[in-house]
Amino acid sequence: MIKILKLDHRPLRDKRITTHCALVSRAFSADEFYYSGIEDNVFEKNIISISNQWGGNFNAKYIELPETFVDDFKGIIIHLTMYGEQIVEKIDFIKKDFKNKDLLIIVGGPKVDKFYYQKANYNVSVTNQPHSEVAALAIILNFLNPDALYIDKFKNNKIKLEPTEKGKKVISLK
Amino acid sequence: MIKILKLDHRPLRDKRITTHCALVSRAFSADEFYYSGIEDNVFEKNIISISNQWGGNFNAKYIELPETFVDDFKGIIIHLTMYGEQIVEKIDFIKKDFKNKDLLIIVGGPKVDKFYYQKANYNVSVTNQPHSEVAALAIILNFLNPDALYIDKFKNNKIKLEPTEKGKKVISLK
Repeated sequence: MIKILKLDHRPLRDKRITTHCALVSRAFSADEFYYSGIEDNVFEKNIISISNQWGGNFNAKYIELPETFVDDFKGIIIHLTMYGEQIVEKIDFIKKDFKNKDLLIIVGGPKVDKFYYQKANYNVSVTNQPHSEVAALAIILNFLNPDALYIDKFKNNKIKLEPTEKGKKVISLK
Repeated sequence: MIKILKLDHRPLRDKRITTHCALVSRAFSADEFYYSGIEDNVFEKNIISISNQWGGNFNAKYIELPETFVDDFKGIIIHLTMYGEQIVEKIDFIKKDFKNKDLLIIVGGPKVDKFYYQKANYNVSVTNQPHSEVAALAIILNFLNPDALYIDKFKNNKIKLEPTEKGKKVISLK
């Protein structure tokens, strides 16, 4: 199982970034999404609404005390940070761990407390250059769940896209 | 050469998304970044400032008439859209094209005109699920430039990170 924890959500500034992180988590087959910072019912409802329409039962759960949440997690903790070790150096170890254990992937906010660097089994970076937590999350999930690019795993969806060469084909399902 | 065109930038709503697209383009070794919509000097200065600090000479260029820009482009046009054909079905063809030709990757805005679907040699989707243009761009660039995860190609940088197991190591260069 892969759980994602997005730290320090700020509804005004981060609305779309946190939404993108949650939707990337869903599309690339993470199992659960948690966020800390400021509780945001609009964001949560948005994710549930997308999940209802496109299938599955993915949602975003608010965590008031993220350090306690991390302390209580049983499994391997990965902290995505541009200061970390290169993902290409670590991904094989992480994949091995993933065969037997749950993973928690922590996605930072603007200032990440030392606690998370210390708690993480892996502090990993995607390029050691500044870019995007959304992109870093997509890259690591794609390494862990490459099948997400191939299979259509969402059940109980109300709409579905048919991949098409030009234009849009949207199929409405009952 | 890989050029990126982000359509329909709206400074208030898209500030961070367009910035993330530009920084992902830089980090994953795209060569040039263009955007249409509303001209945004703050965004442009931000990208130049990051590039000055972290190396290279990446910047973001405003395109007033994106359809003309696309019409004038000599090479293979790829439009990222969740309605498109699965990237895993098309990436080998795109890689072959990339050996001989320039690529233009178009990243959509909220409503993408039919023009772009028609003009594109490939309309490609990353999962056919709703998620993030930032993530889709990172995934296709990682397919095209996998070395970006391995090599440190930025010259004339003022700072550099040393990948580290716990914490942060920032090296200041002259």
